[in-house]
Amino acid sequence: MGLIVQKYGGTSVADAERIKNVARRIVQTKDAGNQVVVVVSAMGDTTDKLMEMAAQITDHPDVREIDVLLATGEQQSMALLAMALESMDCPAISLSGAQAGIRTDAAYSRARIMKIDPWRVVRELEKGNIVIVAGFQGVSEGEDVTTLGRGGSDTTAVALAASLKAEECQIYTDVEGVYTCDPHLVPEARKLDEIGYEEMLEMASYGARVMHPRAVEVGELFNVPIRVASSFSNKAGTLIHGEVTMEAGNKVRGIAHDLDVAKITVVGVPDHPGIAAAIFVPLAEAGISVDTIVQNASIKNITDLTFTVKRGQLEGAMLVVRPIASSINAGECVSDNRLGSVSIIGTGMQNTPGYAAKMFKALSEQGINIQLITTSEIRITCIIDEARVKDAVQALHRAFELEIRESVG
Amino acid sequence: MGLIVQKYGGTSVADAERIKNVARRIVQTKDAGNQVVVVVSAMGDTTDKLMEMAAQITDHPDVREIDVLLATGEQQSMALLAMALESMDCPAISLSGAQAGIRTDAAYSRARIMKIDPWRVVRELEKGNIVIVAGFQGVSEGEDVTTLGRGGSDTTAVALAASLKAEECQIYTDVEGVYTCDPHLVPEARKLDEIGYEEMLEMASYGARVMHPRAVEVGELFNVPIRVASSFSNKAGTLIHGEVTMEAGNKVRGIAHDLDVAKITVVGVPDHPGIAAAIFVPLAEAGISVDTIVQNASIKNITDLTFTVKRGQLEGAMLVVRPIASSINAGECVSDNRLGSVSIIGTGMQNTPGYAAKMFKALSEQGINIQLITTSEIRITCIIDEARVKDAVQALHRAFELEIRESVG
Repeated sequence: MGLIVQKYGGTSVADAERIKNVARRIVQTKDAGNQVVVVVSAMGDTTDKLMEMAAQITDHPDVREIDVLLATGEQQSMALLAMALESMDCPAISLSGAQAGIRTDAAYSRARIMKIDPWRVVRELEKGNIVIVAGFQGVSEGEDVTTLGRGGSDTTAVALAASLKAEECQIYTDVEGVYTCDPHLVPEARKLDEIGYEEMLEMASYGARVMHPRAVEVGELFNVPIRVASSFSNKAGTLIHGEVTMEAGNKVRGIAHDLDVAKITVVGVPDHPGIAAAIFVPLAEAGISVDTIVQNASIKNITDLTFTVKRGQLEGAMLVVRPIASSINAGECVSDNRLGSVSIIGTGMQNTPGYAAKMFKALSEQGINIQLITTSEIRITCIIDEARVKDAVQALHRAFELEIRESVG
Repeated sequence: MGLIVQKYGGTSVADAERIKNVARRIVQTKDAGNQVVVVVSAMGDTTDKLMEMAAQITDHPDVREIDVLLATGEQQSMALLAMALESMDCPAISLSGAQAGIRTDAAYSRARIMKIDPWRVVRELEKGNIVIVAGFQGVSEGEDVTTLGRGGSDTTAVALAASLKAEECQIYTDVEGVYTCDPHLVPEARKLDEIGYEEMLEMASYGARVMHPRAVEVGELFNVPIRVASSFSNKAGTLIHGEVTMEAGNKVRGIAHDLDVAKITVVGVPDHPGIAAAIFVPLAEAGISVDTIVQNASIKNITDLTFTVKRGQLEGAMLVVRPIASSINAGECVSDNRLGSVSIIGTGMQNTPGYAAKMFKALSEQGINIQLITTSEIRITCIIDEARVKDAVQALHRAFELEIRESVG
């Protein structure tokens, strides 16, 4: 008998009918001979509604109390799902994050899981119960309710799977798995049967919305096989794991893109130690998240420094950077907020030449100008005009023949 | 500096404006030099909405999970109230029943408080916080969420006040206090400045909806002064306590009434030991709550046995009683579901003759027929035609001169 952890997102439990549908899927998993632990999100737009209630009280709600408030969303869906299972004669019990032993730090609204004490989960499994655990929440050392922030419920599920040594962590959502690229842009986009952790991390970080990179990181760290699938179909989804067959066939696994990129260039920066820190420490302190940083080759100790941010943070970033540029005797600050990015991702690219050249050629054939290039071991990213992102994704999908299923072994 | 426990009911925290209004009242209490612990109910009709959600899942929801679900209502209002206080620069922290140390038995949906471990409440008070505690909920020995059933939030407040040795427990609701009788029936009804625990218990048990008898019992047991007042005005309300001035003046404190009474008479019951048990044990097992029981004097070992139930339970009670009547060779079962009750209540009535006579005379002058009479040490109740209850309350209010303020010792 295997132990399976399943996670159902907010759209999968948005109303009573969907909750019953999820309950039937859980019963099937149990009837197939498994022990099942289920992590649930809050129903549909419950979290938004709770935030609205808080906003009616005050513009600056206390973060501890926001966590107390938001945690009720998952506590409602877990209770309703447990009732649905009980009504199908399937013994079930719901546990809050605290009851399930999800111990976090005390950083309200963005807490990190420190450890899991799953004794209560184990005891309830041993009694024959399906155990329903509230996603997105935990408890601090001071016994206060915390929430985990973005990607929280996925992270709860993967961390619980690691702690329970589960056979598999299944993330049910409203898409059927991880695709070679966004099917909205390329109709030929193909669902991947499997993908490696590193590749999934690059896909997620570079725009694929299927799963938050945070949960993938936990999966990689504890080697938890994660299956992403739809709660509205019975298809197998995509398995994210560590042993992807990769020697044969196409070595680009997928194409990620991002339509929300803005760029700032500080022109004529004196090139000496400490300059990068002088710019990026204040940006971090202002809560501005910098994605890509590129520094052009220095000519006569003067360099151009370019970095990208989300479009919504461009104005704030300019307010921080302009006085710094002036104080370090740099030239002007130039910004562009109509950019996007496109990335090719695949572990097979490591130590294999020719991928970058093929990518640049495909873009150039479409007349797409590349503004910035950054690479990791398993990814090449080009920053381009936002208006050409769709063309770029389509061209790259064709160039790397991603519509063709990779031959296995 | 005194310690005050305040409880605000669902109508007092029904929306954001009312929550802010409650927060202002709390700030005033603090500014007057008090430490304040606040117990809150769920907002407005939240509990009903949650029960509706459960009903959409299944007709017979699991009781443990119902408690998990319902407990979220108070957790939302407590977080919102704490936010409102924080936004007024008044340090506050919300605690769930479990966090506040409200330990109960495991009887889901009608749990009883076994003890309170208020160390966390005390610690937060010492830090200078207003402590907001979720009413209506606790935690079982097995660390599961429980709810306390009817009168739960009032009971939480009074029990917390007892455990913290508070100066006073203030129950804020949508009425201005305890009245000599229902002001809807008698415009001259007068708000009482004070009332004894026993009197309040009789008033509450016999139809006054201001406060659940359960909470009054806890107050009496631990001698907690309870003040009932309106959260929408600044009037002093009614103090329920143990040392009511009672030697002088009018000895009837108030008149309670109940419009929901049904009566069953089992005619010709053989009068021998065990007969009462044969009838009332099965009724209790069927969950039917019997109020008044009267047995007429036995003639030739044959007696008539009459009891009252809530109207909604009459049919169920008849289904239980008919076969028993037949099996014990009694005569027919007769029912009447158009009855009500009227009671006069006052500690001063003890050992003082003439109250019953005065009551019966007042009713007879109105041509009101008395169907049943029951008494306690401090109460006389008559069961009468429902249609005459209003007349009876008005006549008794006049007869005992309750519109006149009692002279104080």
